[in-house]
Amino acid sequence: MDLAMIGKRIVKFEELGPEYLDRGTFFGDGVYEVIRSYDGHIFALEDHLARFARSMQEIGIQGLTIKEVRTRVFRAFMEADLPNAKIYFHVTRGSEPRNHTAKEGLKPNFFLTIGSAPDSSQDKEQGVSVSTFPDWRWKRCDIKSLNLLPNVLARMNAVKKNCAEAILVDDSGEITEGSGSAFFAIDAKRKELITRPLGHEILPSITRQHVIRVAEGTELKVVERAITPADAVQTDELFLAVTTKDIVPVVRFDGRLIGDGMPGLLTKILIDRFAVMVRRSQKSELSA
Amino acid sequence: MDLAMIGKRIVKFEELGPEYLDRGTFFGDGVYEVIRSYDGHIFALEDHLARFARSMQEIGIQGLTIKEVRTRVFRAFMEADLPNAKIYFHVTRGSEPRNHTAKEGLKPNFFLTIGSAPDSSQDKEQGVSVSTFPDWRWKRCDIKSLNLLPNVLARMNAVKKNCAEAILVDDSGEITEGSGSAFFAIDAKRKELITRPLGHEILPSITRQHVIRVAEGTELKVVERAITPADAVQTDELFLAVTTKDIVPVVRFDGRLIGDGMPGLLTKILIDRFAVMVRRSQKSELSA
Repeated sequence: MDLAMIGKRIVKFEELGPEYLDRGTFFGDGVYEVIRSYDGHIFALEDHLARFARSMQEIGIQGLTIKEVRTRVFRAFMEADLPNAKIYFHVTRGSEPRNHTAKEGLKPNFFLTIGSAPDSSQDKEQGVSVSTFPDWRWKRCDIKSLNLLPNVLARMNAVKKNCAEAILVDDSGEITEGSGSAFFAIDAKRKELITRPLGHEILPSITRQHVIRVAEGTELKVVERAITPADAVQTDELFLAVTTKDIVPVVRFDGRLIGDGMPGLLTKILIDRFAVMVRRSQKSELSA
Repeated sequence: MDLAMIGKRIVKFEELGPEYLDRGTFFGDGVYEVIRSYDGHIFALEDHLARFARSMQEIGIQGLTIKEVRTRVFRAFMEADLPNAKIYFHVTRGSEPRNHTAKEGLKPNFFLTIGSAPDSSQDKEQGVSVSTFPDWRWKRCDIKSLNLLPNVLARMNAVKKNCAEAILVDDSGEITEGSGSAFFAIDAKRKELITRPLGHEILPSITRQHVIRVAEGTELKVVERAITPADAVQTDELFLAVTTKDIVPVVRFDGRLIGDGMPGLLTKILIDRFAVMVRRSQKSELSA
């Protein structure tokens, strides 16, 4: 007789609910997004939905429209009534007995959580420490998939070193991005805002894209170039870009102080401009 | 209020069962094994348990002993009463609200399924077709983790081409292994059994190890060396090694016939010797 065990408990295989046969668990066969709201307004929802659509398409998940996802996100957001919310959602290819190949027409599983966004004010004021870790991820990091074990291992290593984030370094010794964030450096003399160019090696970060947009009105020139950890510690300012906290200054890199060990001036300007941009997007949303 | 959505259904976050907050689903933060029995005897159980222990250790999952896993496997095997069984089990780091870093002391989740092993007699008699796909996997394929999306994408691509398995090819143009199997070539003239050396690029396959063992009594010399697809199609015989089916001859590679398009003689000898070795291990188990 076909059986299953959940922990120590034996159950008949056919009595297993779909949550135990999720291809998300067996294979990480799914994609996800994290979105946040500021003061009752979801930020950059359409950007996130477009990326979600692309991720689904890249791995061939069908049967869930972006219109339906948008409706569900709004329903959850209304119901939760959290002005500064963090919204996570994923879709997996569906539930069925484990087999690498999925059954034709399998119904995808959608799952979402919504809670309060973390308060990042202290991180913004004091900056955070980061440490490097080898980039062990797969070759399609442009797809926001549920295969996140290398990210977990990197982050857990960073936390052990009392760091907030792991900065991933590829085989050629160059930084790709953070385990859950984009990575930026500022060369104050040359007025350069440096970040790795998009490609299969990094996620097309929505926050990265908006940071580049707010930098355009400053004296900073955006330079898309990979740098090494040795370059990074020589740079004047460093920061992370991540949906839940937007811009977070980095003040220590592999134990070395960056600048004077306090968030840099140009980073602060970008933080302020990002906040202004967020408020503007809310106004244009209201007047739309 | 913190909420979740399962499909279209909104639920309170605190009412979610642990199956919805499994780090296995959020991150693929877990490791697994597949074991089979022949005629009422589990084959190479200790080898699989040793690999499972190593996988757990490599990603730092604690709180589940191998002794306990062994007990659970036997309990399920007895209860299922399937002489030729396929046993799948995984452990994940546990269930908690999503966060890359796991809470200290989190209780791991164990899950197992048992059903009949597939009948591989037709595959063994007629051989199978395979096709190549880029190896997009992470840099620690020696860990048998739940991050299997690249394997799924490769296999789905192969099935679209009416092939049974995808053969993964790395950036340097060399074959690593199958998406769910080890890969072997036989040079009949030089009497060489060729397979890729172990390393972070491939899984330390238990079946591979036993194939090498049974080859030792033949005229074949085991050569651990990476080959290219161009080499493979020039080789006399090819086969896959996988727990559920042991040795499966490959008769077509990227559309090109291998040998005369029928399973090779030396492969057949290895299949027979493998079967003898399995029966011997059962006898030594009974007399132990």
